[in-house]
Amino acid sequence: MFCKVKFLPDNKIVKVHKGENLLTCAVKAGVYLNSSCGGEGICGRCRVRVKKGKLNSETTGMITARDQKKGYVLACLATVEKDVTIEIPAESRIDVFKVPDRAVKETRPGGIYSKAENIRCAEPVRKDNIYKHSPLASKLHLELPEPTLQDAVSDLERLIREIRKKADIPVMQTGLSNIKRLGRLLRESGWKLTVTLGKRNETTEIVSIEPNDTSKKIFGFAFDIGTTTVSGQLVDLNSDKVLGTKASFNKQAVFGSDVITRIICAEEEDCLEKLHKAVIDNINEIIEELVQEHKINLNDVLGMVCAGNTTMTHLLLKIDPKFIRREPYVSTANFVPVIRAAEAGIKINPRGLLYCVPGVATYVGGDITAGVLSSRMSEDEKVSLLIDIGTNGEIALGNKEWLVACAASAGPAFEGSGVTCGMRAIRGAIEDIMISEDFDIKIVTIENAKPIGICGSGYIALLAELFQKGIMTKDGKFNAGISDKRFKKRHGETEFIVVPKERSASGKDISITEGDIENLKRSKGAIYSAASMLLAKIGLSFESLDNIYIAGGFGTCMDMEKAIIIGLLPDLPREKFRFIGNSSLIGARETLLSYEAMKKVEEIARKMTYIDLSTEPKYMDEYVSSLFFPHTDLGRFPSSSIKRAS
Amino acid sequence: MFCKVKFLPDNKIVKVHKGENLLTCAVKAGVYLNSSCGGEGICGRCRVRVKKGKLNSETTGMITARDQKKGYVLACLATVEKDVTIEIPAESRIDVFKVPDRAVKETRPGGIYSKAENIRCAEPVRKDNIYKHSPLASKLHLELPEPTLQDAVSDLERLIREIRKKADIPVMQTGLSNIKRLGRLLRESGWKLTVTLGKRNETTEIVSIEPNDTSKKIFGFAFDIGTTTVSGQLVDLNSDKVLGTKASFNKQAVFGSDVITRIICAEEEDCLEKLHKAVIDNINEIIEELVQEHKINLNDVLGMVCAGNTTMTHLLLKIDPKFIRREPYVSTANFVPVIRAAEAGIKINPRGLLYCVPGVATYVGGDITAGVLSSRMSEDEKVSLLIDIGTNGEIALGNKEWLVACAASAGPAFEGSGVTCGMRAIRGAIEDIMISEDFDIKIVTIENAKPIGICGSGYIALLAELFQKGIMTKDGKFNAGISDKRFKKRHGETEFIVVPKERSASGKDISITEGDIENLKRSKGAIYSAASMLLAKIGLSFESLDNIYIAGGFGTCMDMEKAIIIGLLPDLPREKFRFIGNSSLIGARETLLSYEAMKKVEEIARKMTYIDLSTEPKYMDEYVSSLFFPHTDLGRFPSSSIKRAS
Repeated sequence: MFCKVKFLPDNKIVKVHKGENLLTCAVKAGVYLNSSCGGEGICGRCRVRVKKGKLNSETTGMITARDQKKGYVLACLATVEKDVTIEIPAESRIDVFKVPDRAVKETRPGGIYSKAENIRCAEPVRKDNIYKHSPLASKLHLELPEPTLQDAVSDLERLIREIRKKADIPVMQTGLSNIKRLGRLLRESGWKLTVTLGKRNETTEIVSIEPNDTSKKIFGFAFDIGTTTVSGQLVDLNSDKVLGTKASFNKQAVFGSDVITRIICAEEEDCLEKLHKAVIDNINEIIEELVQEHKINLNDVLGMVCAGNTTMTHLLLKIDPKFIRREPYVSTANFVPVIRAAEAGIKINPRGLLYCVPGVATYVGGDITAGVLSSRMSEDEKVSLLIDIGTNGEIALGNKEWLVACAASAGPAFEGSGVTCGMRAIRGAIEDIMISEDFDIKIVTIENAKPIGICGSGYIALLAELFQKGIMTKDGKFNAGISDKRFKKRHGETEFIVVPKERSASGKDISITEGDIENLKRSKGAIYSAASMLLAKIGLSFESLDNIYIAGGFGTCMDMEKAIIIGLLPDLPREKFRFIGNSSLIGARETLLSYEAMKKVEEIARKMTYIDLSTEPKYMDEYVSSLFFPHTDLGRFPSSSIKRAS
Repeated sequence: MFCKVKFLPDNKIVKVHKGENLLTCAVKAGVYLNSSCGGEGICGRCRVRVKKGKLNSETTGMITARDQKKGYVLACLATVEKDVTIEIPAESRIDVFKVPDRAVKETRPGGIYSKAENIRCAEPVRKDNIYKHSPLASKLHLELPEPTLQDAVSDLERLIREIRKKADIPVMQTGLSNIKRLGRLLRESGWKLTVTLGKRNETTEIVSIEPNDTSKKIFGFAFDIGTTTVSGQLVDLNSDKVLGTKASFNKQAVFGSDVITRIICAEEEDCLEKLHKAVIDNINEIIEELVQEHKINLNDVLGMVCAGNTTMTHLLLKIDPKFIRREPYVSTANFVPVIRAAEAGIKINPRGLLYCVPGVATYVGGDITAGVLSSRMSEDEKVSLLIDIGTNGEIALGNKEWLVACAASAGPAFEGSGVTCGMRAIRGAIEDIMISEDFDIKIVTIENAKPIGICGSGYIALLAELFQKGIMTKDGKFNAGISDKRFKKRHGETEFIVVPKERSASGKDISITEGDIENLKRSKGAIYSAASMLLAKIGLSFESLDNIYIAGGFGTCMDMEKAIIIGLLPDLPREKFRFIGNSSLIGARETLLSYEAMKKVEEIARKMTYIDLSTEPKYMDEYVSSLFFPHTDLGRFPSSSIKRAS
């Protein structure tokens, strides 16, 4: 028996078998709901409202009795029994959102990175790109001499001859479809045309031909395909100018919040296709919004570079990631040749090119090689450490001679998932918090908007303040000796109210629970201990480092001091730290804009050695020691004790 | 109003508009009829029989009154008025036929070409291929070491690493579809697989991957796409062995017998598609027959090289040839990159590669560059002349330093078209004729079969005999002074009976008319005068030549002496002549089997200069002088007068 499910406000209707899970129905209809637990009924983010008809749904503490009466249910706990109409509230939707301007303003004249200034909320400051401008796709306007009886070479040879007058390209190839169009196009355009040249592996391809001079219009996209967040950036491939950046939560989250859950899911029938389609939808929506905003024709988008971890890259290309999670944990491809974006279902010019930044190993993907590229650590004689605080928390170490990397299973807490009031660093996110001795709380939100939730940097500040003000103990529990109106009980768990519902944008309390603290503690512990182990493995210590680069979608604005206080970052001289923002996205963009950078990132991927921490005997000890604020070994955090004492 | 037309014995039914031409209906149904005049009602080869229903048809002298009563009509002169059933007699069909073995036995140990032996019916004798074996597609069986925790590179890198251990390939690429299959395939086959490597322009492609060891099974096709005849050869790409050769009349003949008519036709709506489909049908049928005969799986056919004139190559790839016939006569592409055969609609392995031998100019195509390759004239310090007696009659001249070429509009008479009883050099064709003083005629047929018609070499012998025995005058008319029972009148024209109907396989007289002689005379005159002009242009004479190579599908068995007697070939020392058979097909095969040969043929195409004879002031005089047997200037043919005197 079939039922019809209608989703509002999209007005999308899907016909499903009776008894089907509502979250699955939504995916079938192409409607993606927030879900950081992967449909386990834990995160409570897939709240929807029944407008017409009835569902069979489990009751859950995540929905208040009042809301239940209004028809709210968790989609993941509901099954369809008859025709229904479902309304999806704004907060449950995965939507494209604008990334704050400062998060992408990383270019500024001057030294490679600014040294002293503004460490608290540093913009990554970069000298003009050191790699030569030679984008993945470039346009060339040509006026061909008309053929004569004396100069009667074929149209294609004439075209290639003219291209070679302007560019040094020994090997050139082109597809049959362009050749088929060439004769008519040349004559109808009066021998004036524009060719798009693309870098395809070691050769150059005539990607497309069009009449007249369109050489001013050529755009590309750089994408960071994160497990939690997909970020895309529209770039003018002539001027290298970034026109806009948007992000959205990875729609694959419906199928699980981490890569392993998604790999398991991909083994079910049709699920690989669904996971692939989900992320392609993310990408196409971001592209669509950005090109509309900038009034760009999709046909003028001719190149694209994606950086993501190995599983994300597999799913992007619909390569089965199954073997990644089986010993010996081998991926199908770390280096994928340049293909057409259309082959992956991405909607740009149908002949536009897609390059995926190569990875090192199953757990060190293209996002890290792109990050290393953008940090310039592989150009430096001094030793640098790169910490990418994403869902996985990858760490790279090295210099121009050698590179090693490892992965820490940090979880997505600092990306706003798995924590009650977590959110991405977008408008309305609390990014800094100060707590006075009498529990008066001052917050800073992005764009000074009414607060909606707390982003990564906000949680770092909150933990540091809770710890320093003695509200939270070093093992991450609330201090039982304090009683204040800010402490509340919800579902039997204590929460600390940061912003009461009267002042929040959602009308709900913005708070932190001990469960949230536990998750955040595990994330910060995983990152610190992995960095520490990686250094030990090479025979180095934190003290021997010259630079520490902090990357992460969230990480353009975090309080360094507070990150050290909670033990997320090592207690080193502050001038050694640099924020480099979403280095995966920046590296992808650099690869898009320069063939030299593409060759460099390939060299990085080949050169870097992956170190599997799980086989290191001392790793578990190191990890457990770091599950405290800041660490069991306070000797490692001298400034923490100074601060507390002051 | 629509009518249904059923074609027997194929049982193919097509629905057409009332009033549609029957020849067009047949093409729509995928049934190709013989037609050397292109549907003008002249050649009389598209005879069909109405079995049921009625057609509106013009009466024609080509069908006897008796046959008209039996329901025979010319398809090109008939239109459909109501539902009909049409039977197509065997002789009106374009069928795949076997090329006689000797026509393709061109390899024999010894000198590059045999010098002295058997000039009358010489097999082209060739030393073993001088180009290194490195076919367009080759297979490599690999047993990959299984991944371990210590050796955990990705599947694709593991594969490439293993390939590089066996072959020196700096740049390797592969498509996404292979990568998608790789993980599962490796594990299911126990890490034993076979890869097909293909040469794609300057890089190597992993064309396909398959489980287990299939490296013994890899085949390719070489094709000569002639205006009149399409010939294909199945080759074992491991051993270079030719497994079989077949040919069929180019189905495009339905749309016109020469390239210009077909180009004009291609400008009509949908006609480019039809012309393309016609030749692709030729190719696919030959492939199908040869693979079935040799019990080969189509998936093991992974490479293909086609050589054809420029228009044929355009139509093969469905590139509009329109501009070829408009001043300044420019083609769209002379060099086409390697593509997948499937892109052109050719049915081999869907990822199998297709390379078209590059041409020099609009009227000197890949068939000539392939011919020059196979003749070895471009490796020789001495000066050689290559005459390809095909529909167009191209001529090349030069040595290892320089090459020039021109085209003579020879017409297809020596290929069996445009002459009353012409046929290709297949079983049953008269290939030699001797006429005694008392008009007793001895014939030699291919495979000693009952005679069906006369092939090119047969016509050369016939003309020489008619001329030498005084039956035909030097201007190509029958000697009015002779009366013999062999002279008959048909449709008001005199014909000379070579084989009376009682002794022919078709039950019809095999004869030659003055119209036939006129056509053959123009062909031979066009070729001789073009060769003569080309030499003059370079400041050389026939006497300065060291080698004269005679190529052509027909030309593996022709009487050199008789070709000189009629003035087709110059009167030079006989040891300078070499027959090199279908040099376009042989050159295509050499290109298929060796990357070195591919580079060589590209060099030939780049090096060769096209000379347009139509702009040469003296060309018309030279042509008119050669419209006699053997020539107006008998001083050029000293042996001719000796023979006649003897």
